[in-house]
Amino acid sequence: MEEKTSLDKFNNFSEWFRTVITDIDLIDTRYPIKGCYVWRPYGFKLRKYVLDIIRRLLDNTGHEEVLFPLLIPEDIFSLEREHIKGFEGEVYWVTHGGLRRLEKRLVLRPTSETAMYSMFKKWIHSHADLPIKVYQIVNIFRYETKATKPLIRVREITTFKEAHTVHTTAEEAEKQIKEAIEIYSKFFDELGIPYIISRRPDFDKFAGAVYSIAFDTLMPDGRTMQIGTVHNLGQNFAKAFEITYEDIDGKHQFAHQTCYGISERVIAAVVAIHGDNRGAIFLPTIAPIQVVIVPIIYKGEEEKVVEACKKVFDALKYDGIRVFLDERDISPGRKFYDWEFRGVPIRIEIGPKDVANNQVTIVRRDTMERTTCSLDEMKDVIKKLFTEIEENLRKRAWEEFRKRIFRVNSLREVKEIVQNRRGIALIPWCENDECGLKIREEVEGEVLGVVLSKGIADVTGNEVCPICKKQTKKLAAIAKTY
Amino acid sequence: MEEKTSLDKFNNFSEWFRTVITDIDLIDTRYPIKGCYVWRPYGFKLRKYVLDIIRRLLDNTGHEEVLFPLLIPEDIFSLEREHIKGFEGEVYWVTHGGLRRLEKRLVLRPTSETAMYSMFKKWIHSHADLPIKVYQIVNIFRYETKATKPLIRVREITTFKEAHTVHTTAEEAEKQIKEAIEIYSKFFDELGIPYIISRRPDFDKFAGAVYSIAFDTLMPDGRTMQIGTVHNLGQNFAKAFEITYEDIDGKHQFAHQTCYGISERVIAAVVAIHGDNRGAIFLPTIAPIQVVIVPIIYKGEEEKVVEACKKVFDALKYDGIRVFLDERDISPGRKFYDWEFRGVPIRIEIGPKDVANNQVTIVRRDTMERTTCSLDEMKDVIKKLFTEIEENLRKRAWEEFRKRIFRVNSLREVKEIVQNRRGIALIPWCENDECGLKIREEVEGEVLGVVLSKGIADVTGNEVCPICKKQTKKLAAIAKTY
Repeated sequence: MEEKTSLDKFNNFSEWFRTVITDIDLIDTRYPIKGCYVWRPYGFKLRKYVLDIIRRLLDNTGHEEVLFPLLIPEDIFSLEREHIKGFEGEVYWVTHGGLRRLEKRLVLRPTSETAMYSMFKKWIHSHADLPIKVYQIVNIFRYETKATKPLIRVREITTFKEAHTVHTTAEEAEKQIKEAIEIYSKFFDELGIPYIISRRPDFDKFAGAVYSIAFDTLMPDGRTMQIGTVHNLGQNFAKAFEITYEDIDGKHQFAHQTCYGISERVIAAVVAIHGDNRGAIFLPTIAPIQVVIVPIIYKGEEEKVVEACKKVFDALKYDGIRVFLDERDISPGRKFYDWEFRGVPIRIEIGPKDVANNQVTIVRRDTMERTTCSLDEMKDVIKKLFTEIEENLRKRAWEEFRKRIFRVNSLREVKEIVQNRRGIALIPWCENDECGLKIREEVEGEVLGVVLSKGIADVTGNEVCPICKKQTKKLAAIAKTY
Repeated sequence: MEEKTSLDKFNNFSEWFRTVITDIDLIDTRYPIKGCYVWRPYGFKLRKYVLDIIRRLLDNTGHEEVLFPLLIPEDIFSLEREHIKGFEGEVYWVTHGGLRRLEKRLVLRPTSETAMYSMFKKWIHSHADLPIKVYQIVNIFRYETKATKPLIRVREITTFKEAHTVHTTAEEAEKQIKEAIEIYSKFFDELGIPYIISRRPDFDKFAGAVYSIAFDTLMPDGRTMQIGTVHNLGQNFAKAFEITYEDIDGKHQFAHQTCYGISERVIAAVVAIHGDNRGAIFLPTIAPIQVVIVPIIYKGEEEKVVEACKKVFDALKYDGIRVFLDERDISPGRKFYDWEFRGVPIRIEIGPKDVANNQVTIVRRDTMERTTCSLDEMKDVIKKLFTEIEENLRKRAWEEFRKRIFRVNSLREVKEIVQNRRGIALIPWCENDECGLKIREEVEGEVLGVVLSKGIADVTGNEVCPICKKQTKKLAAIAKTY
C-alpha cells in the first residue's frame, strides 16, 4: 500500500472516495464492464454487517424475506403504463437463449414491482390474506448512460433491498408508509448517517407511484445523495395487475400497495460521512475488523510480547469481537498507518512495558486518543469505547449536516448555497409542480421536495412561495444532487 | 390446504415432490417464465439455514466471501476454448441497453470462472498473493431446453455457491481438491444426505477442467442427482487468462486453480430424502419452524391452556428455538395435519390435563412417537430430541441408500438395476472413455464415473472391465440420472 499523503476529503472528495473504497479493498473497480464492480472480502463483510441491521429491523416488524426471479417478461413488465414509461429507456434486454432468439424478450429487473405483483395476484384472495409484507435483497440493473461512480451510480446495483406490502385500505397503506419511514430512520440512525426526509415533487416521483418520500444525506462535496425511498403506490399497480381481495361483505376490492428500497448507496454514505483524511472510519457495529492488535517488538523481548498479544487476541475473539492480530514483518508505524486507513475503530498496542505492567495501550480511530488499561478492565473498556465511538461519529456527522442546512427566503440565496456553499437550502414552496420546476431552473439545483423531517427548520405559516407568492406552510429542500 | 391423501413418495415421487415443495410454500412454480421460481418466506428460511451451514464450513477453512458481477462480456467469456464450447449453447445473451443495441454482447453468468479470473489476473503478482480462496452465493443462468423441474433443473439457479481457489503448485491444488471434498462431505453429512463420490468420465467433465469429481445422491424414484462438484482446472484457465505469479526465484509461473459448487439441488435432496407420505420432515438444524405448539382446548378451560401455551412459547423462544404457537380457530387434528405436512420436527400439545400435571405432550415428526415430560425437563428433552431426530433421519437415509447400491459384474445386471430396481450399479471399469461410452449405450444409464467413496464396495484388483476385459482396480457407478 502506498502512502496516501494527498487525501483531502473536503477539498477533493471524488479522489478521496475513489482511493478509499478501492485501496482498502472494499470493491474493485477494474471489472471490464462500465458500472459493474466486484465486492472484495473486506467490502463484502462491511456489506454483510450493514445488511444484518436492515434485516433485523425488517424481521422485527413482521416483514418476511423472499426471493423473486431476476428476469421479467416484456408483457408483464409493460402492464403498468407509467412504470414502463419511466423505465423502458434504462433497462437491459435479454433477447437470445443459447443460439436461439427468444419468442418473448426478457428484462433484467430494474426493480421488482412487476415481477412480484403478477404473483401477488395469485397469493391474494381474501382480506384474510392481507397484509403482505415481504422484502428481498437482490441485484438489479439500470442501463446508466451518465457517468458511473462506484457504489453511487452503477449499472449493476448489487445490493438492492426492496420491501413490498399489500393492504386492504388506503389507511393501512398510509400506516405502512409511516412504519417504513420509522424503520429507515432507525437504520440510518444506527449507521450514524444524517438525513433529511422529503416528499419528492410530482415530477420526480417513482414511476407508477401516487407519491414518493425520500431520505437524502449530504456528501462531503456538498451534493445530496438519495439513500432511501418510500412509495405509496395506491391502487395503480393493483389495477394493472388485478390484485383484488374479497372483503368481509364478499365484495371484490382492489388492494393498496407500498414499496420502499435502499441500495449500496448506504455503504457509500457510511464510508464518505465518517471517514477523514487518514482514510475510512467504521462504526464498531459494521467494521469488518473491530480491533486490531499490533505487537511492539524490541529485541530480546519478542516472545513475551507475542505471547501477550495472542492471549489478548484469544480473549477478545472468545467474546465475539472481530479481532485481528497483525504479525507482519513490518514496522509498527506502518501497521498503524494501514489499519487507520482501513478504518478499524480500535487499535491495541502491546509492548514490553505493557507486558510488564499487565496492561494494554488502546487507541481509538475516531479521535486518535490513546489510553492504557489493565488486562482485567480491557473487555469492559473496549465495549464502552465501541459505544462512545458510535455516539461520537453519529454526533459529529449530524453536527456537520446541520451546519450545512440553510433556511432562506430568496432564490438568490438558494442559488448561492447550492452553488458555492455545499449546502441544502430550505425555502418556502407552494408544492405546485410548475413553481418547483421554475425554482429548479433558476437556482440550477434539484428540488428534493417538501421537507417532512421534524426539527430541521421552523415554519410559521406566513411563508410565501418565491414564484407564485402564495402563502404556504411548507418548505422545499433544494440542493445539488448525485 | 387440501388433504393430500394421495401422497406416495416412492411410487409417485414426481407428484409427491411437486405437491410438497409448492403446498408447504417453499417455492411458487407459477412465475410466468419457464424454469424460474419464487422462494416464499417458508422456503427462504429453509434456504437460509442450509446456506448458514455451508458458509460456516467455508469460513472456518479460510475461504472468504465475495460478490462478482452477473454480466460477462462476450470476449472475456470466450477466452478459454473448452469452456466457451461447453457453454455457448446454453447461455442467455443481453443485447440491448434501453433502446440501444450494445456494442458488445453480455452473457448472464452460467458460472463465474471467466468473470472472476479476469480479475484474479489483476490480484495476483507474487507467490505471496497465493493461495486465493474465495466463494460467492449468487444466481446463475442456463438456457435449459429440456423439461424444467423446480429446484432440480431450472433456468435461473437462484442459489449457486461457487468457490474458486488459486495456488502456486499442482500439489497445492490437489490438496485443495481434498479439502473441498472434505467440506462437502461434512456439509451433506450435516444435512443427512447420503452420497457417492466419483470422478466423472472425461466425456462428462466440466468444460475447461482437467478432471471433475462429483457428489451424487439417490432420489426416491431411483435416479441419481448431482448435488456437488469439485473441479481441478489445472493451468487451463490460468493460461487463457494469463494468471501468473512471480515465484521465489523471480520467475513467472502460471497458477493452478480449482473450483467447486453446489446449488439449490441440495434443498431438493433434503426435502426428497427425509420426507414421507405425510409430507416434509426437516432436520431441526434447518427447519424454518423447529417446534409448533398446539393448544388442546376444551370449553371452560380455554384460558388456562392458552396461558400455559404462551409460557411455553416464551420459554422456548428465549432459548433461541424457532417456535410457533398455532392459535388458529380450527381443530387440533387439522393443525397436526398441517404441521406434519410442513415438516416441523417437534409438536407440543398442551391440554387441560397437561396444565393440571405441569407437563407437555411432545410428538416427534420422524417417528411420530408421543411422550410427555414435565415443564422443568422440557427444554432438555427438546434439545435431546433434536439430536435424536437428526441422527435418526441421517441413519434412515443412509440405510435406504446403501440398500440400493449393487455391486455386479455383468452389463445385464447393471441394466436390470438402473432400469427396474431404482438403484446404483457398481461394475469394474478400465476408466477408458471408449469403454465408458459403450457401457452407457448398452445399459441405457449414465456412467457417473470411478467411485472414490470409501467403504461403498470392496475391490480386489482382479476385476475386469466388461468391455475391453482389461484388469482394473476401479469400479464405475452407473445409474439413471436427473
